Amino acid sequence: MGKKVCIIGSGNWGSAIAKIVGDQCAASDEFHTDVHMYVYEEMIKGEKLTEIINTRHENVKYLPGHKLPQNVIAVPDLVEAGKNADIMIFVVPHQFIRGFCEKLKDHVKPDAIGISLIKGMDHTKEGLQLISDVIKNILSIDVSVLMGANIASEVADEKFCETTIGCTVDANGQIFKRLLQTPNFRICVVNDSKTVEICGALKNIVACGAGFVCGLGYGDNTVSAVIRLGLMEMMKFAKAFFPDNPPQTATFLESCGVADLVTTCYGGRNRRVSQAFVTSKKTIEQLEEEMLGGQKLQGPQTAQEVYKVMQTLKINEDEYPLFVSVYNIFFNNTPVKNFIECLQKHPEHM
Amino acid sequence: MGKKVCIIGSGNWGSAIAKIVGDQCAASDEFHTDVHMYVYEEMIKGEKLTEIINTRHENVKYLPGHKLPQNVIAVPDLVEAGKNADIMIFVVPHQFIRGFCEKLKDHVKPDAIGISLIKGMDHTKEGLQLISDVIKNILSIDVSVLMGANIASEVADEKFCETTIGCTVDANGQIFKRLLQTPNFRICVVNDSKTVEICGALKNIVACGAGFVCGLGYGDNTVSAVIRLGLMEMMKFAKAFFPDNPPQTATFLESCGVADLVTTCYGGRNRRVSQAFVTSKKTIEQLEEEMLGGQKLQGPQTAQEVYKVMQTLKINEDEYPLFVSVYNIFFNNTPVKNFIECLQKHPEHM
Repeated sequence: MGKKVCIIGSGNWGSAIAKIVGDQCAASDEFHTDVHMYVYEEMIKGEKLTEIINTRHENVKYLPGHKLPQNVIAVPDLVEAGKNADIMIFVVPHQFIRGFCEKLKDHVKPDAIGISLIKGMDHTKEGLQLISDVIKNILSIDVSVLMGANIASEVADEKFCETTIGCTVDANGQIFKRLLQTPNFRICVVNDSKTVEICGALKNIVACGAGFVCGLGYGDNTVSAVIRLGLMEMMKFAKAFFPDNPPQTATFLESCGVADLVTTCYGGRNRRVSQAFVTSKKTIEQLEEEMLGGQKLQGPQTAQEVYKVMQTLKINEDEYPLFVSVYNIFFNNTPVKNFIECLQKHPEHM
Repeated sequence: MGKKVCIIGSGNWGSAIAKIVGDQCAASDEFHTDVHMYVYEEMIKGEKLTEIINTRHENVKYLPGHKLPQNVIAVPDLVEAGKNADIMIFVVPHQFIRGFCEKLKDHVKPDAIGISLIKGMDHTKEGLQLISDVIKNILSIDVSVLMGANIASEVADEKFCETTIGCTVDANGQIFKRLLQTPNFRICVVNDSKTVEICGALKNIVACGAGFVCGLGYGDNTVSAVIRLGLMEMMKFAKAFFPDNPPQTATFLESCGVADLVTTCYGGRNRRVSQAFVTSKKTIEQLEEEMLGGQKLQGPQTAQEVYKVMQTLKINEDEYPLFVSVYNIFFNNTPVKNFIECLQKHPEHM
């Protein structure tokens, strides 16, 4: 029969992954052909989105113009979608994950395994909580993560790219690699799962910095410096956050690290909106409305979460001038030119 | 009196560095105010280039639109420029360096120190020779290197960037940092000099690959994958080339490593010309003529040198599919689409 795969989420990235998962499950004996995809039900011009997906095989709202494989079945009920699944792929906005897991609890196979494609982190009283740990703690299943230089529309176009799977159980990492790797979606598996996940969250802060310097009229040298100094702060932050289980430098050289950072700083929405923030003088809320159809930009939120965590854990602000400057520019009305000053005085060059 | 500084070379990058060096020498007691710059004499509309520089303080041929500091003195005689110098900055096209050093030999202060800003490498019967070693061997002086994400025009515009100095004598590295660091040109000094230098050469091969995929219509995900896989091959090659003195991973995270690679793959001439090579179907020689005024592109040359070195040292081609594919596309009429196949079968994902 093969392992049953369920995708929790059906946004832009979820739908792009559903294309891969559907094709792979149809072609392999290891996996059950039918793939359930939980879809938040909405009406599109008088039709249910799940019905559109199940009859015309296209997510017209979040991935228009791409056919989904016919064996990807949209399911509007979360518990119904998840029950009997051996493999659960989580790909929802991070603010929803806790509520979703609470609903799924008690309906998940005890030996199911999960993988999180969610970018972000949770700030708690004790400091920081990874999204994979939120899922793990509520559902009591093993959770891997997948992060990489993966702009969804390009993945859906089957343009060559790489990604990284971080796992805690090697055998599970290999299952996910067999499920997800195609000739144009190439996977490296590492066991430094926490680092993989934190890279996916922190990169968006750096991308805001890249947007600032572009908005100020700087060129490729400065963008590269922002990328590199951002990477240095990501590495330092990961070390401070996981003192008992320090990150491996090699993980930052995977697709989830430097490659995703480059893609996000050149082609991502955080870069674009932050650039417009400088050139248009509009607020982030206005730009979210105009440029993202009201969706929230992740970089400012993550900068705020990281700033709170630094206060909770009494981490010295001076060691993270780039992260702190992005926070202050978005939330404390600090002028954007302050960002260049923070680069000029960066401890890396002292 | 202060140490006398001499710049050997006055192209685009040499002139941009001369701006920094001139200002710093005028402001510091550690260095002599007058800076000699060797300029290959040419006639520009009936005037000698050295006379234009020494009267109007502008290198109208290679860095038009920027004033050079008045204490930068153009000298058309190489030996005259170099004698009495305590500090020699080498910034000439790499095919000229051997001849220049032969001329300078016997006219250089025995305790002078040098720094090479030259990108490239020499292929010899024994394998590979670094440019800094060519200088060191002929002139018998200590030679550091400076490499980083430094597009010359942006440096001349004083737009913020970083760079890396690789030294073998720590004290000399610090002298160069005091000479060259400004608020907008930030320096990290490392003692892994060979790795710094080899990064500066190999990056241009990777940039050709980035140009190919852009020419083929791929997006940011694919460019990032090329950058990362190129970095992996650079690291592997450096390890194979310096078996007795293995490179430090951290050096690849300096400006000379990942940052320069990003700048070169997004904004550099190797990227632009290689992209046009795909879209225009013209030969590299035609494109060099049209896009670079007849200057040679470094990436194809370096790919050829690296390929020869791999044959000399009997290094397995299969471990460097990206480098070898760039070579084959330029020199063996291999179709460009082969480049994507080499990425799809890259040993990193096996």
